[in-house]
Formats: sequence, C-alpha cells, structure tokens
Amino acid sequence: MLHENLPRLFSPQAMDRLRELTEIDACLVVEDFRQPEAARALASAEVLITSWGAPPIGQSVLDGAPRLRAVLHAAGTVRGYVTDACWERGLLVSSAAEANAIPVAEYTLAAILLAGKNAFVLRESFTGSRGAPDPDRERRRDTLGNHRRRVGVIGASRVGRRLLELLRPLDFEVFLGDPYVGPTEAAELGAVLLSLDDLLRSSDVVTVHAPDLPATRGMLDRRRLALIPDGATLINTARGALIEAEALTAELVSGRLSAVLDVTDPEPLPADSPLYGLANVFLTPHIAGSVGNELSRIGDAVVDEVERLVSGYPLRHQVVRSDLERVA
Amino acid sequence: MLHENLPRLFSPQAMDRLRELTEIDACLVVEDFRQPEAARALASAEVLITSWGAPPIGQSVLDGAPRLRAVLHAAGTVRGYVTDACWERGLLVSSAAEANAIPVAEYTLAAILLAGKNAFVLRESFTGSRGAPDPDRERRRDTLGNHRRRVGVIGASRVGRRLLELLRPLDFEVFLGDPYVGPTEAAELGAVLLSLDDLLRSSDVVTVHAPDLPATRGMLDRRRLALIPDGATLINTARGALIEAEALTAELVSGRLSAVLDVTDPEPLPADSPLYGLANVFLTPHIAGSVGNELSRIGDAVVDEVERLVSGYPLRHQVVRSDLERVA
Repeated sequence: MLHENLPRLFSPQAMDRLRELTEIDACLVVEDFRQPEAARALASAEVLITSWGAPPIGQSVLDGAPRLRAVLHAAGTVRGYVTDACWERGLLVSSAAEANAIPVAEYTLAAILLAGKNAFVLRESFTGSRGAPDPDRERRRDTLGNHRRRVGVIGASRVGRRLLELLRPLDFEVFLGDPYVGPTEAAELGAVLLSLDDLLRSSDVVTVHAPDLPATRGMLDRRRLALIPDGATLINTARGALIEAEALTAELVSGRLSAVLDVTDPEPLPADSPLYGLANVFLTPHIAGSVGNELSRIGDAVVDEVERLVSGYPLRHQVVRSDLERVA
Repeated sequence: MLHENLPRLFSPQAMDRLRELTEIDACLVVEDFRQPEAARALASAEVLITSWGAPPIGQSVLDGAPRLRAVLHAAGTVRGYVTDACWERGLLVSSAAEANAIPVAEYTLAAILLAGKNAFVLRESFTGSRGAPDPDRERRRDTLGNHRRRVGVIGASRVGRRLLELLRPLDFEVFLGDPYVGPTEAAELGAVLLSLDDLLRSSDVVTVHAPDLPATRGMLDRRRLALIPDGATLINTARGALIEAEALTAELVSGRLSAVLDVTDPEPLPADSPLYGLANVFLTPHIAGSVGNELSRIGDAVVDEVERLVSGYPLRHQVVRSDLERVA
C-alpha cells in the first residue's frame, strides 16, 4: 500500500489491536515485493494486508510466500491486487468494500436531498442575481420538495443497498434497477423494481451505483439519457465511464438535465470542458468515497477481519472469485 | 390562508377525506374575516383550518363564531394567528409544525454531510481552476470525512429532534445544546449534552435549530462565533436573527468559517452583501422548509387531526399556550 496511507487507515488504537492479535512489523509497508525486507517477511507471512497502491500479488510473489493463506484488502475492490494465481492457490480474500461504501452512500443521500430542492441551481441563480426578486418564484417553488419525490437507484451494489437503507426513513418513492435482483428482494430493500429504461422514464432523481464492468461501461448512453424526464437530476458518485461522456455533456449544456458529478470520464475533465462553467452541474473532485477520517473506518474493518481469522471465525466480508463478474 | 396555497396543501384525496369527515365548503378560503361569506361560515363553524396568510383570530372574530372549538393550523408556528382571545376562550389548537419540521431536518442533514466533505468549497475551487491539479491536495483531503465528525445541534426543537433521529444511523459524534434538556434525555436522543459555549468550541459543524424568541435573538454573537474552531461550518436553516449578522459576515469574509445559510438577517441580504460572492458560503433563498410537494404533507397531517377530532380522539399535535414561551 502507499506508505502515507498507513496512519490514515490504522489509528494508533487499531495498530495496537493488530499487534496484540498478530506478529506484525508495523513499520513494514511494501510498495514493491522485490524489496529485500518484503521477501523476508513473505517467507513467513500468513496474512497480507493490502490497500490502494499495493503491487499485484502474482505467481512469483506467491512462490515466495509458502505459508500465506489470506489477503485482507483495506480498500474497495480487490481487482488488480488479487490475481488469478491467488484464487488458484485458494487464498481467503476479504475486502473493506462495505466500509468503503458508507461515505459514498451518505454523499449520495445528501445530493438527492439537495437535488429535490433544486438547491444547487437555486444557489447559483440567487447569488448570481444578488438576491433580486425572482418574478417566477412561485412557479419555481411548486416544482420543489422531497415528499414522494421519485428516486431511481441503479444498482443494488454495496453502495446502492446502503443508500436504500438511508432512504428508508424518508418519504421518497424509490425505484431500483438491477438485473440480479427480483421484485421481492427489491421490495425488502424498500424499492420498486423497474427495468432500467422504465426507471429512467419514471425518476426525478437518478443515481448510478453499478460496478464498472465491460457490460456496464457507457450503460447510460444517449438513448437512455433521453428517457430521463426534463428537469431531472442525474447523480454519479460511482465511475465516470458508466455514462457516455459526450451524451451527458450535451444534456447538461442544453440545460435539460442537472447533475451532481463526483466522478467523470475522463477524470478530471479537460480544462476546456463546458461542465466546469455550468450552474446546473455540481462537480466535485472525487471526494464521495473514503477520504480523511473515513479511512480509519476501513482500517477498523480490516482489524475486525484479522480478529475473526485469528479466532477461527469465518470472515465477515469474504470475496469469492465469481463475485468479480458482477460486483466492483 | 392564501388562496393559491389551498391546492398545494390539500391534494384532491385530502380534500375528499375532509368532505367525508366534515361539512366543509372547500371553495371558501378566507384571507379577511370581514368578507360576508366568512361571517356566515363562522356563525356555524366548529373548526377553523388556518395556514400562512390567515388573518389573526381576534376577539371580534370569536364573537361571531359561537360554536368554534378548534383551530387546526396547516403550517408551523401558530404565533400571529392564534391570539390571546383564543387561549382565553379555551379553543383546542393544533399545528402541523411536526410535518413542517421534516424537510428542514432533511435539508440540514444534507448540509452536514456535504460540509463534512467540504464539498461546497471544493466544488468552487475545483471548477474555478477547471480541474487543475491541486498541489495541496493530500493535506486538504486529510481534513475531510464524516467518520466521527463532531456535529453540534443547537436546540432540541421539532427540527432538532428530527435531525437527531436522522443522524442516528451515521457515525457522527453529536452534541446537543438546549437549556430545557437534561443529559439523560440528550443521551436518549443520541447526543451528548453540552453548554452552548462548549458545544461551539467542540464542533466541526454547528447547526442552529432554536426558536426565534426575544431570548434567542442574536444568541450567536461575536463572542460565541469566535468560539467555533477554525475551518468549521455553521448551518442556519432556522431564522436569520439567531445569528448576529455583522459578526457572521466578518467570520465568513475572513474565511475562518464556512456557512450554509438558507435564512439570513435581513432576508434577502442587501444586494451589496459580500456573502453573495463567497465560495465558502452556500446561500439559498429559504427553501429548506416546506415547499412544493412538501406542502401536501402538512395538509395530510391536518386532515389526520380533523379525523381524530371527529372521532373523539385527542389531537396528536396539540399546542398549549405555555408552549409559545419556549418553542417557535
């Protein structure tokens, strides 16, 4: 993992717990397995803790790690870290994707609530006019509000599910689109299952929580974006590639849709992108996911997994190889 | 009430329920009790439904309404509508302040979550620089996040209590300041009780939900604002007069604090107010409270009260005279 992330992920208390539970060299952070001290540690290691910036765990690494039995990933997806060789060796794998989903869901909840009030756009017009009376005020206000507002959630991913939980105590009408979820499960999650096209047609706010896979890349293309009602808000806190960039830009430049975009394609957008200057786009630099104090939640989750492993309990957040076909 | 609000407050379904429960002339909206049709209706009315824009119910009105026994207010505070004469007559009074508190609490929740990510300010700098790399990015990101972020809630009002409920499933450290609440009740509400000064000293995000009373006006004065830590965010979705305007402006212009202000003093701010141009101020035109579709939630709550009254059940949201000394 990245050296500088160690104290962000593992608080002093978390590090103390790790030292109690295991024999760990808390100073050894590996960014390259060819470091001599890495090779020495691998020779006896039973558990690897990885995170953003870790090198892939390939066959040559495994060859030097005869006692290794588990990889605990202190970040979201294990893709790019845990290789085919790890799966073939039968290593136990766990990720902190669940803990990592929490801040994304919270950020999205906030974006939905403010989109329902059109707060991002009204702020721009209100400050731009320096508080001048709006002759169209009453008509505009009639379009606002979060009572029975229709929210479309694309993807019952970890983030999608956490978001659905957070939406429960609110009075939204919630739609869910997910090819792996049936109507009964959707109802249990507090949502009405719709096809993707019907969800887009029926939602005042659309939020994307699908994984970034070959099958989902560009899933919100020109045709599908056109299904979203005029004046709706599209939220993307997942991955920029899920939405066709050119089509999205056209819908936002025309003003037909508004957007809250924490991710884009490419990221960041080129300096001449029109999206930087639009009042109807609330654009932020990829901050919805775990940042700052939220990294320690991930470290805590990994220490919990270490404790379960040491005590002989099953991992709480085990990842199996087939998960990677449909989750992030 | 205001004529144009009738269909906003009472959906066709709510109106049908009212017609079933009562003898009501659904076309009679009174903005002035001196209208002849108002006088005729008052002569037999047992229940008055009031809302924003209703005339005060004074002694002369009551003199013409011998059968009147209840006033159901389809808005927040009954102050200014229900007069001393109503209390002396012993009228039952109910308000929809509870339903009206919901959108304010939701808006505030969203503001807290985005303040914890510094999203309002980062959006400005990110779009202002058109995505240019931020040399100070890592240090800045370390200050972000909503894991164990300290949130100070001033006032266990209806909005304050609803907000505390919404904060429950999140990992905030929540402080409550309210002179009428003890530490045990605060703990039951999910918060640690602090004196106002200690709350201000200890919070990364401060949000005001006190009523606007002579005792609370200007409660956040220059001395108290100075107690709030550098870089914190102050949220006001209550009333502008709770915060001393000049002192607040100074703290925001200096950049020491950030703010989310849906209300101001005066409101709107004069066109030459510096707050219109500040990246660290998210300023909106009083939209946190019930607007648009949220008005029908208020109407529904009033119809529920009518039903309870007709069925002989106690009102759910009764207001008594002494409430007005300490609630909005």
